[in-house]
Amino acid sequence: MVCTDASALVEAIRSLAVRGAPLLGIAGAYGVALAAARGFDVTEAAAALEGARPTAVNLAVGVRRAQVAHQTALGRTGDPTAAAAAALAAARALHRQDAEASARMAVNGLALLDELLPGGGHRILTHCNTGSLVSGGEGTAFAVALAAHRVGRLRRLWVDETRPLLQGARLTAYEAARNGMAYTLLTDNAAGSLFAAGEVDAVLIGADRIAADGSVANKVGSYPLAVLARYHHVPFIVVAPLTTVDPDTPDGASIEVEQRPPFEVTEVTAPQVPVAGAGGGIPVAPLGTQAYNPAFDVTPPELVTAIVTEEGAVSPVTAQALAELCARSGQVTIN
Amino acid sequence: MVCTDASALVEAIRSLAVRGAPLLGIAGAYGVALAAARGFDVTEAAAALEGARPTAVNLAVGVRRAQVAHQTALGRTGDPTAAAAAALAAARALHRQDAEASARMAVNGLALLDELLPGGGHRILTHCNTGSLVSGGEGTAFAVALAAHRVGRLRRLWVDETRPLLQGARLTAYEAARNGMAYTLLTDNAAGSLFAAGEVDAVLIGADRIAADGSVANKVGSYPLAVLARYHHVPFIVVAPLTTVDPDTPDGASIEVEQRPPFEVTEVTAPQVPVAGAGGGIPVAPLGTQAYNPAFDVTPPELVTAIVTEEGAVSPVTAQALAELCARSGQVTIN
Repeated sequence: MVCTDASALVEAIRSLAVRGAPLLGIAGAYGVALAAARGFDVTEAAAALEGARPTAVNLAVGVRRAQVAHQTALGRTGDPTAAAAAALAAARALHRQDAEASARMAVNGLALLDELLPGGGHRILTHCNTGSLVSGGEGTAFAVALAAHRVGRLRRLWVDETRPLLQGARLTAYEAARNGMAYTLLTDNAAGSLFAAGEVDAVLIGADRIAADGSVANKVGSYPLAVLARYHHVPFIVVAPLTTVDPDTPDGASIEVEQRPPFEVTEVTAPQVPVAGAGGGIPVAPLGTQAYNPAFDVTPPELVTAIVTEEGAVSPVTAQALAELCARSGQVTIN
Repeated sequence: MVCTDASALVEAIRSLAVRGAPLLGIAGAYGVALAAARGFDVTEAAAALEGARPTAVNLAVGVRRAQVAHQTALGRTGDPTAAAAAALAAARALHRQDAEASARMAVNGLALLDELLPGGGHRILTHCNTGSLVSGGEGTAFAVALAAHRVGRLRRLWVDETRPLLQGARLTAYEAARNGMAYTLLTDNAAGSLFAAGEVDAVLIGADRIAADGSVANKVGSYPLAVLARYHHVPFIVVAPLTTVDPDTPDGASIEVEQRPPFEVTEVTAPQVPVAGAGGGIPVAPLGTQAYNPAFDVTPPELVTAIVTEEGAVSPVTAQALAELCARSGQVTIN
């Protein structure tokens, strides 16, 4: 998909052609730069981009960075071309920073894994997709598993298929296969059996928004894994760049969780298949079936063993520890 | 599908055209009667039927009842026709008993719900399919929800879609719609969000085998619900006829859990779609992806609030209480 204007990008974000918290931030910033370069109303484009999806704070962060760069340059020079160039430079900087953050999260995450699980041979369970398909670099949680793989300490990557949109089956399995990792796909239902059998050493997931108190919004299905991990005394580790921490969201209850359309549940989408239900997919439930379809869930800080960022890990997860990490990096002042 | 001999029925059971613990018992008994009526080797047919699937004990129970009736009549009369008639009578009796058991489980389950949740307005979460499609009557867990619906005390039936085979979306949603129940479908991942939001008053599931210690084998995904229910102090109730209790299986670790083929996970089956992957479905994961696909999981008795049977409920669930219930009914002696 090629987006030649910001409204096409908004649609690509809404339909999830562009998805994943870090990538949403990068895309948002480039979207503002694109609107500026093509002479559109930057404020309007920024508002549309920021409002395309509500939960991942990275999107708003990326949009605002490019917008602030644009406004500052415009105010200083009065030159729209220079302002557009400044927006593009901000987007490129965010893109580069995300790649750098990814590499540093991988190092920090692997160090934490080795500390929590001495001896290596990690069997890691992951959910949704957190690799290079959502990142300027190699991703968040997936980057840690990949780092473990590269040093020979990944025994198995357990990949939750991640209904309704099967990001695990479609994307994470692809990234794992491409990198030659030992991986096994499972239905989200089967994770409990793995825990019960003692086959999971750690859970590694990404995040879409981390509230100031350390509550983590991530792909629906993350919270049940956190509860299972706690019940089985398995570390539950969240890997995310500091841009995912939103100091303006005080707690989990304040996080807006996006509700997605019912057809994602009542139909299965298979682009290679021409048969189409009301939402464009293959119906798997009776016509008229209502569906409850939150895109994310919220895991409270007491269930999170550690949050790994590019600036280091926070464990135990407390509002104070998180605020200190953000302050040390100076990252939040950019928001 | 019409099965005119026992081997066709074995295949129907293996491919899950016939499925669900109580129905497997009834089908197994009729299968033996069919083999006898058509002059096949009854011992051989019974062994094949009993071995078609390993976890649901009801299958073995049903097969053995018809087989014992056949052998007894043959020994007494020496007449194969009379023996075949005895096998059929045994199958019919089991069928009728299952319908009666279903009605009594509904009464007992509703009484328990009303006791645990005074005030009605029950919001019940269920998993897989446990209604009239798996029963001589109206089923097990579903029958209880239906009874609550009929007396106006069911506020909402939350229906887990139940990957990989979507029995919730395809079958339970159908049965709920047909009965005019207020129901909402969700991905298995979204159950955690419902618990967190306080939207679940009780979990009701069926069972494929209950060990002597009260461990419950049921559709994969049941155990995670039990852990979530415990974490949220929500009753987790198993509804099953006494034929599901297997005194010869001492505990959960002794239950053989059937592993199903990977293609159930790596492909989505849509009979209306002609495009076919290796397993006859639409591929949703990269070619060659390994999958972990246990059909069932095991919930330990300490996570089960109550087991509801046609003879009454056991709560708390202990080996002794379960043994007493079985002894009172005299049911286990028939096995």
